[in-house]
Amino acid sequence: MNKVQSDIRQWVRPTTVIRCDLIDELAGTKIILASETFQRTGSFKFRAAFNVSSNMPQRKLIAASSGNFGQALAYSCKLLEKSCIIVMPATSAAVKIDAVRRYGGKVELVDTGSKTRAQRVAELAAEHEDAVVVSAFDDDYVIEGNSTLGEELASIQSEFDCVVVPVGGGGLISGILNGLRRKGCRKPVYGAEPLVANDAARSLKAGKLIKNEVEPQTIADGVRTLSVGERNWEIIRTNVEGIVEVPEEKICEAFRALFLLANLKVEPTGALALAAVLSDAARFAGKSVCCIATGGNVDPSTLEQLLRT
Amino acid sequence: MNKVQSDIRQWVRPTTVIRCDLIDELAGTKIILASETFQRTGSFKFRAAFNVSSNMPQRKLIAASSGNFGQALAYSCKLLEKSCIIVMPATSAAVKIDAVRRYGGKVELVDTGSKTRAQRVAELAAEHEDAVVVSAFDDDYVIEGNSTLGEELASIQSEFDCVVVPVGGGGLISGILNGLRRKGCRKPVYGAEPLVANDAARSLKAGKLIKNEVEPQTIADGVRTLSVGERNWEIIRTNVEGIVEVPEEKICEAFRALFLLANLKVEPTGALALAAVLSDAARFAGKSVCCIATGGNVDPSTLEQLLRT
Repeated sequence: MNKVQSDIRQWVRPTTVIRCDLIDELAGTKIILASETFQRTGSFKFRAAFNVSSNMPQRKLIAASSGNFGQALAYSCKLLEKSCIIVMPATSAAVKIDAVRRYGGKVELVDTGSKTRAQRVAELAAEHEDAVVVSAFDDDYVIEGNSTLGEELASIQSEFDCVVVPVGGGGLISGILNGLRRKGCRKPVYGAEPLVANDAARSLKAGKLIKNEVEPQTIADGVRTLSVGERNWEIIRTNVEGIVEVPEEKICEAFRALFLLANLKVEPTGALALAAVLSDAARFAGKSVCCIATGGNVDPSTLEQLLRT
Repeated sequence: MNKVQSDIRQWVRPTTVIRCDLIDELAGTKIILASETFQRTGSFKFRAAFNVSSNMPQRKLIAASSGNFGQALAYSCKLLEKSCIIVMPATSAAVKIDAVRRYGGKVELVDTGSKTRAQRVAELAAEHEDAVVVSAFDDDYVIEGNSTLGEELASIQSEFDCVVVPVGGGGLISGILNGLRRKGCRKPVYGAEPLVANDAARSLKAGKLIKNEVEPQTIADGVRTLSVGERNWEIIRTNVEGIVEVPEEKICEAFRALFLLANLKVEPTGALALAAVLSDAARFAGKSVCCIATGGNVDPSTLEQLLRT
């Protein structure tokens, strides 16, 4: 199956490879940062969103997203002259709502105390019969959009021994695994998951998909998902080398290190892969580790708070 | 004359080319950012410092620098197993002093109320007969180290119509001009200078080198120089297309735009080239403009202040 729309490669920006001697020193090993912070809309989500948008026959898309997928979908639809409705909690930060609108998306705020986002999405889908509802991770087009990053990494595989990828819904890691394997790269891929949101790690140990009971409150807001998707789980289960469970303080440490030592502005989730290396130094000793920095859309207030701690 | 040490190309990191749709929209034209924020030690100065350090027969170097050149020289000397003394004002921010020390440099603080930096450098030179004093800009090796960036830009010249480069001592713009011209690229190069530190613009109008009477207090601390150097002036005078004089508020606006829209963390001087485009939109309308983002070493306190204004 190849569900990557041919058009996507002229829109997706190649990932930005960044090296920093001080980061290598801190990690005690060679770190290759593959940064998606300069991707369109500031995160890897554009790869997924553009691929799914361009493959849907419908001209109208609906999705629930409080973050990067919403921005990416809004911009993809703008580029494709389609329209979209993004369902966001009424409590979302103003900057996130503004960002979706800036890229041309229509925002539907939902009071999550009285109605779930999924309920509101279902209502909107009933109202808009011409629209299609899309998932941010549990979708073949999403996975294949993200596989373009795996293919890019395969083309520089001589530079690293393994890859570390943040895991939330699993859309990125499953895409990277597919892209790497398709290009013949068998190098190990590790997931990085916050310890307080370790459903994928627990799933891997149990050999079956386990869900968090409530949305985990990690600082890495990009991976606050109840579980990985079904499609993602099938790929992760059979291909991933392991999942590193990362304490919150290591995410903060990696965030600060990237900002202050490498001049790389990431959002907390974008620091998760480096944080995994910092929290399990023995596993990565002597290895050249490719860490995916997933996105850079951090709120200024979160940034200030993280730099002060 | 080719004073680029052959070794330099294995140490200097290639510049990072970054595109951002929202920046293009803000500028009203196509902007290609050539970012030196991921260069070793976080600024273009490494190109100059490594070239001068590796070409000097002496094992000990002395320089006055309160900023990026000091860090770059310290790290160059560390890589080359040489030593260096960096003369800094006693009032320098602790983070800047720490950065020089982190890269292995010896810091000499001078109370600039009772003695100039130049006097302290002269004293140290007398004390250390085996040492050589190096300039951050008025030096052929410095210029030729920076010319490596011009050569890199020449290799992507099909992407832009002109280049905009911040001007302080003139080390970077003269190097870029030499590198571009050597590679046969005749595209126009503009300088970008703070309006409150417009000695190069005034020099160009007067047809002779004019100096500021005191160090200008622009937010762009990387270009707080009294004038461009003699060697730099000769290259600028005959090759530059023009100098754009940039109001302070445009530097702040460009800084915030790069940070918030493009996820690019620069120091204020690193925003100067984009600020020039924002402040003279008519001149650059319809052009693809390559803006050099010179460095990313901004103090967290300056960053917070700039994001709030």
